Order: sequence, then C-alpha cells, then structure tokens
Amino acid sequence: VQLTAGDIAQIVGGELSGNPGQIVTGVAGVREAQPGDLTFIANPKYAGALRSTRAAVVIVGHDIVTKSARTLVRVNDPMQAFTTVVQRFVPPPVTYETGVHPTAVVAPTARLGRDVSIQSHVVIEPGAVIGDRTVLGAGSYIGHQCRLGNDCLIYPHVTLREHTEIGDRVILHSGVVLGADGFGYETSQGRHRKIPQVGHVEIGDDVEIGANSTIDRGRFGKTVVGNGTKISNLVEISHNCRIGEHCLILAGVGIAGSVIVGDRVTLAGQVGVAGHLTIGDDAVIKAKSGISKNVPAGASVFGAPAVPDKEYMLAYAHFLRLPKTVARLRELEQLMAKLRADLDSTK
Amino acid sequence: VQLTAGDIAQIVGGELSGNPGQIVTGVAGVREAQPGDLTFIANPKYAGALRSTRAAVVIVGHDIVTKSARTLVRVNDPMQAFTTVVQRFVPPPVTYETGVHPTAVVAPTARLGRDVSIQSHVVIEPGAVIGDRTVLGAGSYIGHQCRLGNDCLIYPHVTLREHTEIGDRVILHSGVVLGADGFGYETSQGRHRKIPQVGHVEIGDDVEIGANSTIDRGRFGKTVVGNGTKISNLVEISHNCRIGEHCLILAGVGIAGSVIVGDRVTLAGQVGVAGHLTIGDDAVIKAKSGISKNVPAGASVFGAPAVPDKEYMLAYAHFLRLPKTVARLRELEQLMAKLRADLDSTK
Amino acid sequence: VQLTAGDIAQIVGGELSGNPGQIVTGVAGVREAQPGDLTFIANPKYAGALRSTRAAVVIVGHDIVTKSARTLVRVNDPMQAFTTVVQRFVPPPVTYETGVHPTAVVAPTARLGRDVSIQSHVVIEPGAVIGDRTVLGAGSYIGHQCRLGNDCLIYPHVTLREHTEIGDRVILHSGVVLGADGFGYETSQGRHRKIPQVGHVEIGDDVEIGANSTIDRGRFGKTVVGNGTKISNLVEISHNCRIGEHCLILAGVGIAGSVIVGDRVTLAGQVGVAGHLTIGDDAVIKAKSGISKNVPAGASVFGAPAVPDKEYMLAYAHFLRLPKTVARLRELEQLMAKLRADLDSTK
Repeated sequence: VQLTAGDIAQIVGGELSGNPGQIVTGVAGVREAQPGDLTFIANPKYAGALRSTRAAVVIVGHDIVTKSARTLVRVNDPMQAFTTVVQRFVPPPVTYETGVHPTAVVAPTARLGRDVSIQSHVVIEPGAVIGDRTVLGAGSYIGHQCRLGNDCLIYPHVTLREHTEIGDRVILHSGVVLGADGFGYETSQGRHRKIPQVGHVEIGDDVEIGANSTIDRGRFGKTVVGNGTKISNLVEISHNCRIGEHCLILAGVGIAGSVIVGDRVTLAGQVGVAGHLTIGDDAVIKAKSGISKNVPAGASVFGAPAVPDKEYMLAYAHFLRLPKTVARLRELEQLMAKLRADLDSTK
Repeated sequence: VQLTAGDIAQIVGGELSGNPGQIVTGVAGVREAQPGDLTFIANPKYAGALRSTRAAVVIVGHDIVTKSARTLVRVNDPMQAFTTVVQRFVPPPVTYETGVHPTAVVAPTARLGRDVSIQSHVVIEPGAVIGDRTVLGAGSYIGHQCRLGNDCLIYPHVTLREHTEIGDRVILHSGVVLGADGFGYETSQGRHRKIPQVGHVEIGDDVEIGANSTIDRGRFGKTVVGNGTKISNLVEISHNCRIGEHCLILAGVGIAGSVIVGDRVTLAGQVGVAGHLTIGDDAVIKAKSGISKNVPAGASVFGAPAVPDKEYMLAYAHFLRLPKTVARLRELEQLMAKLRADLDSTK
Repeated sequence: VQLTAGDIAQIVGGELSGNPGQIVTGVAGVREAQPGDLTFIANPKYAGALRSTRAAVVIVGHDIVTKSARTLVRVNDPMQAFTTVVQRFVPPPVTYETGVHPTAVVAPTARLGRDVSIQSHVVIEPGAVIGDRTVLGAGSYIGHQCRLGNDCLIYPHVTLREHTEIGDRVILHSGVVLGADGFGYETSQGRHRKIPQVGHVEIGDDVEIGANSTIDRGRFGKTVVGNGTKISNLVEISHNCRIGEHCLILAGVGIAGSVIVGDRVTLAGQVGVAGHLTIGDDAVIKAKSGISKNVPAGASVFGAPAVPDKEYMLAYAHFLRLPKTVARLRELEQLMAKLRADLDSTK
C-alpha cells in the first residue's frame, strides 16, 4: 500500500503542512518509525519526538507548536486519525462466520443468541446462555449455566467454569480461566481440608481480560469485576474479590482473596495484594508493590510493604547512599573520640 | 430458598439463641454478608465481627463468648455446619456422566478404570492409564504413558505431557501444564544448546493445583510434589524440584530448578526461590520474598534476598525513617563542628 | 536397564579409571544421584562434588584433577557423553505420526509442508502456512495467515493468533499464547477506550518458549523475539517489544510495551521491565529486579528500582544493619550532649 501525505490529509480531514507528495508506505509508533512511515503524536508533551522520529509524515494535534520543517497533518484527534489511516496498511481484521461449527458440542439445553459464531471444538454445557453476536473461539469451554452477554469476543482456548456470568462487549483472550476453585483450605494438625468453593464469577460490561489470566469463583457469593475494567495477561484475582469499575490491572498482578478494589484504580505490573484489604477509588499502586494494609482513595503507593510513593522513593535514595552515610557516622565517631581526648587533656 | 434460624439449628444439630423465626435467604462470609444472610465465625479470635456483620444469623462455636443479642446457632464445628447449610442455597454441584464422549480420541492401548468420565474432545495417548472414577474435563490432553490414580478431577484444558504420574484424589484446574520441558541449556560462545529433558513429573495423593500453573519435567529423574500439597494459580515449579507433603504454595510463586522443599512449608504469594536450595520443614516464606540461600526448618523469612522476617521488618522500619536519621546525623555533624570550634577557642 | 562402567566407557569412547565392573542402574544429577547411578561433572569448578556425590560412576572431563578412588570415565564433552548414556535408561522419546488427524480442522486455503504431523483437534485457519516436518500438538490453534517454519515442535494447547510468524526449529510449550492483543487504551474522563492492536508477533529461528507464556501482538508493527532466544514459563512480553538474539528470559518475567532488549541478555526470574526502555547487549538483570530506566550493555543490575548489583548488595548489607547503625547514632548523640555539658562546665 502507498499513500501520499496529501492523500492522508484528505482521508482524515486534516490540515497539511510540508510536502503533499511525500510517499508513505507504512505505519509505526513514533519511536519505531522508519523512513517512509506515518506516525502520530497525541500528546503535546511528546512534541520533542518530532525532532527525533524517522517517520516521513506525522499526524499531530492543532495544539502542537513546532518549527520543524517536517511534513505534518494536523487534526483534532491524532490517535483517531492515525487509527483510520492504519486500516489502509494492515490486513483486514479477521471476521468470524456466524453459525455453529459441526465439531462444536452444544448441549441441547444451551440457548444461543442471534448471529453467534460458535467455532471449531467449542463445548457449551447444559443451561448456558450465549448473547447475540457473541463469538466463541475455537476450543473454548463454556460451563454449565454460564451466561454471556451480547457482542462478546471469546478467543480460542478460554475456560469458563459453571455459573460464570459475563456482561456485554466483554473480550476474553486465549487461556483465560474464569471460575476455577478459590484457594481455600481449613488446616488442622498440618493437613489441609478443602473448603467447597460454591460461589461464582461475575464480569461486568466492557471488561477485557488478557491471555492466561485467572479469576477464581467465590467461596460462596461471588467474585466480581466491574464495568469497563481492563486486565492484562497472567493476572490472578482470587475468590470473593470485588474489583470496581474502569480499573487498569497490569500483567503479573496477584490479588489475594476477599480484596475490595474501588473504581478507576491502577495496579501496575507484578503488584501483589494481601487478602481482605480495601483499596480506595483512584488509588495508584506502583509496579512490584506489595500491599499489606488498606490503601486510601487517591493514594499513590510503592514498595513492599507499600507506603506513599514519595516516602518510599526518598527512603530508597537514602538506602542507596547508606555506605556513605555510615562512613560519615564512623568519621563522626572518630572526631568525637578525639574531641573527648582533647577536652580531657585541657582539664 | 428460604429457611428460618430454627430450621438451621435443626439441620446442623445446633443450639439456638435469639429469634428462631428469623428468616435467612442467603449465605455469605462474615464481611460480605447482607441483611438476610447466614454467616459463621469459626475462630474465637474473630468474635468481634459479631458486632459488625450485617448477617441475620451467625453460626458460632460453643467457645465464643458474646453479649450480642444477635440470633446465633452454636455448634462444635462452625465451618462444617455452615457448609452443610450452604448446600441448601447454592445450585447443585455439576456432575459428570460416566463414559467416553464420542468426540474424545482415546488410543486403543490406553487403559480406562471403572466409571471414568472422559468428556468432549479429550485426547488420551497410547499407554496412558486412567484410574477408577477419574473425570477428564473437556479438551484435556493426557500424554503417552501417563498414569492417573483414582477419583481425580481434571478440569477442562489441562495438559499432561508424556510419563506424568499423578496419585489419587488429585484436582488439576484448567490450564495446568505438567511435564513441559525444563529450562535447561548449555551455553557456549553465547549460544544456548538445549539439554534434553528426559525425566518426568510425579504428583502425590490429594494434591490440588490451581489454574494455569506449570510444573516442568525432570531433566532426568523426576520433579515431585508430595501428598496433600496445595498449589494455587500461576505457579511455576521447575525441573527436578522435590516439594514435600502438605505444603501451601500461593499464587504467582516461582521455584527454580532442583529446589528441595520440606513438609508443611508455606510459600506466600509471588515468592521466588533460586535454584538448588533447600527449604526446611514448616518454614514460612512471606509474600514476594526472594530466597537466595537455604532456609532452616521452622524459619519465617521475608525480603529479597530474604532474612528472618523480624529482622527484615525492623530494618524496613528504619529504612522508612532514613530521611530523619540522616537529618539527625547532619545535625550531629554541625554540633560537632561547633563543639570543636568552642573547644579550640577555650585553649 | 543395567550397564557396567566398562560398557559406559565403551559407549562414549571414554577413558576408564576405577572398577570396570561397577554396575550402573540409573542416571541422575550429581546432587540427586543415589548409589548405582551414573552422573557427570561438566565444569572443573564443581569437581568438589566428586567427594560428596553418592553416584557409582562419574563422567568427567580430562581437565578434572582428583585423587578420588571413585570410578570415573573421562571424556572431552561430559554433558554430551552423559546424554548419550541417558538414552539407554529413559523411555524412548515420543514420536509423532505424520499426517493430519481426522479430528483436525484444516482450512482448505492453509498450506501444509511435507511430513507435518497435525494431531487431534488441531485447528488451522485460512491462509496459514506450516513448514516441513513441523508438529502441531493436540488441540493447538493456528490463526489466519500464520506462518510457521520447518521442524517446529508445537505442543498441545498452544494458541497462535492471526498473522503470527515463527521461524525454523521453534519449540512452543503447552499453553503458550502468541499474538493476543496488547494492553493499549486511551483513557479520557476515567474511561478506557481500546486502541486497535493490528500488528503481529514475529519469532526467530531456534527460539523456545515455556508453558503458559504470552507474547502480545504489536499495536501496529510487530513484537519480535530474535533467533536463539530461550524463554521459560509464565513470561509476559508486551506489544511492540523487540527482544534480541540468544537471550535467556526466566520464569515469571514481565516486560511492558515497546521495550528493546539487546542480544545475549539474561533476565532472571520474576524480573519486571517498565515500558519504552532499552536494555543493552549482554546485560544481566538479577532475579526480582524492577527495571525503571535504561540498562547499559554489559551491566549487571539488581533491586527495584534496579541499580548496579554490587551497589545494591552493599546498600542491602547496610540496610540489614540499620538497627545497629541507628543505635550508634543514638549513642553518639548522648556522647555529644555529655561533651557539650562538660565543655560548658569547664568555662
């Protein structure tokens, strides 16, 4: 595919400056772009990249000020405009034929919505309900009495254990397991007796869950993920957690049982949260932190055990200087000894 | 479903105090309970929750002392009693029809025990042996010459590579992979040559392994998990580890190769253990710790690299106060300079 | 199986010292070996194990000097020699029949190389290309337009999303997911709008990826893993990363988006790397580190946030001594007060 800068300005309804005949043969992020690529800058604070990028043409907002002679296309929403052009350069998205593949095993008591796509080797157990236009990728397993909303996209090899409920427009990536038993035992005399895990998992609308993440069913009652929350890969959410709405949970996070997470919370990569805690709305947990007590709304915390992030980073700076600090202390001890000796000798 | 407190006392053979006509319409944990719910308190140290819970009725032990006017049902084993009542409120457990689903692919040389349930799209390779009453969930893969005991519950999408052996009453959750190759290479001149991984995995009786956890086969010889050990989700156990009996291994733990773990050891969430180490019986490794040397039996350790947990927490408290400590040091340096000047001026 | 030390010397073309009639009935690592086992020592620095091992016979290099009376077989390449003998003691490796299993679903437009093995319940979508002699394990999913090289070994339950490209001799273990959507959203007013992830994943030759690891597709452009890189289990590599050649990435590592990793880099267990960073050639990141800024070529770093590993370990030693250090400071403060009082009283 090949477009000119002028073509691109026209496609996105943008304002061109520079060379309208500049040829574009690919698309890329601003750092990865090669000569001939189109890229974009959505945020004025990254305007400095206009100097360093190797891209041939850059889509920017009207608010970016630059003396660069580079060929630019100015628009209101650079990311949206870029996304529009990208579609000219990438293969068309995969589409899924509606219907039920002959190798799928669908229980007679399962109910399928209109225009669903049930692909090869899918298994749907008795009593499950699949919403309209929902796609079940190859080899996915939908357990007894599960309920899936409309317009969901379930990629290959997803497992939903019995009674799992998911809302509309939910995306589950390959290898996701929802509703496995929680990790619950009663220990006596060094033996662990399994506590029945008879609750279920409930996922809101517009949730996306990354590859190979796991969310365990409630011990009784439910494990909940609220509307609009996005979860990355290899995340574990344990039994009876209640995750709020519009949260971001990054890869490798582990949340122990019965944790309550508010709305718009960010849990960065590899964070761990101990059981039975509460994390307030809009809190930000920095990467690799270990949460061992409640986090107030709006707080930003770091460390293991986590404390306010500024406090942690200040202490950490001192930590790295400890060898020098202890040397200062040693010097002071010597000065002190000398001073004592001098004072005693003056008496 | 709806029961009265009196019904519940009768079902569990308990002693009622309070209102026998109190209606119960659901069950929940003591913190999550809503009005109308039944809950329970198993441990006298949580008796304080009797004040705060919103539950309508609480099952407690005979040993709990309270002035609460709340409706209580007293029994010997509150968790067991609660579990009994829960079964009135939750859907009946999923049952698995015995037999071999027509879409399963079972090698003629595989041997199936009595009353097994081999579900849709299961694959059983040549020479595998499946014990009596064992359930193989949809899409599970049982490799060549694997041996599974009696009464195992293998959930959908489990993978057992060739020669894996598991005991009786083992539960494997969806996405578990047992027997993948260990991570073993010989590196010379910056290239990594694969070391054949020709051992296998051996799992004892009454082991439970959580969703998407992985246990690698031995390089030669075996990787072992002992009887009664419970492993949560997204855990990695590397080649040639020997995990003892009745351990608890929480989510996100990673254990490198050839580690020996004793009996009744607890590895809390996201712990990492370096290769070739030994962890003694009854040791407790706190969450997120990194183990870089042997841990003695009975020890409780924390940190990365881990040290005795009390030592770590004391040092960590000092770490957070470092800015103040360094300010004290600076002040002392100034006092020292002044003192030196004063002393010199007196001479 | 049973061999004598003399048999073994002959099989590997080695030089025997000790008892040629010594019976060998098994094989094991030098630490795990039991009486009757054969073991080996590849590196002269582990020669001390010659004293402690319980093995009956040890394969060593010609360069190992010992006064041990133990039965030894000396060769040029002990690991290679040992591997040769191991094959007499372990079950023959599993082999895969060529052909397409009748339960596999192969799109008519997919192209299969010569002597491929497409096993039970495999799904190959339209336009995919499978190289010669490549094995696709049971239940694996090969998405639209994927391209796999020759001699690849794809274990059961692997998922390759559309447009994934992998080289020759690649090994993917069970549960691997390549090409799931990257974790990319544009957040405004507390809502997360999904950014289309229209790139793909490209894996070089001789790469091995461990069980349940995930590599996300590029947002646009590609996520790349270079030739010869080995990745362990439960690793997450995010969208648009470029991992170099001959790296070692251990279990539980998480790499955020758009990270550039050089050649021959080692990322030890549970390391996390923040987005948009660069890690230079031959760098070593110690276990559990959190990388928050670029790492120069050849550096060895540790900690979270990571710093040069010697610097970290020195500071950490001081950290553990903080209670004593603060006690010294307190003592000094008291000495100072006394000195001040003494000085004032001399005036």
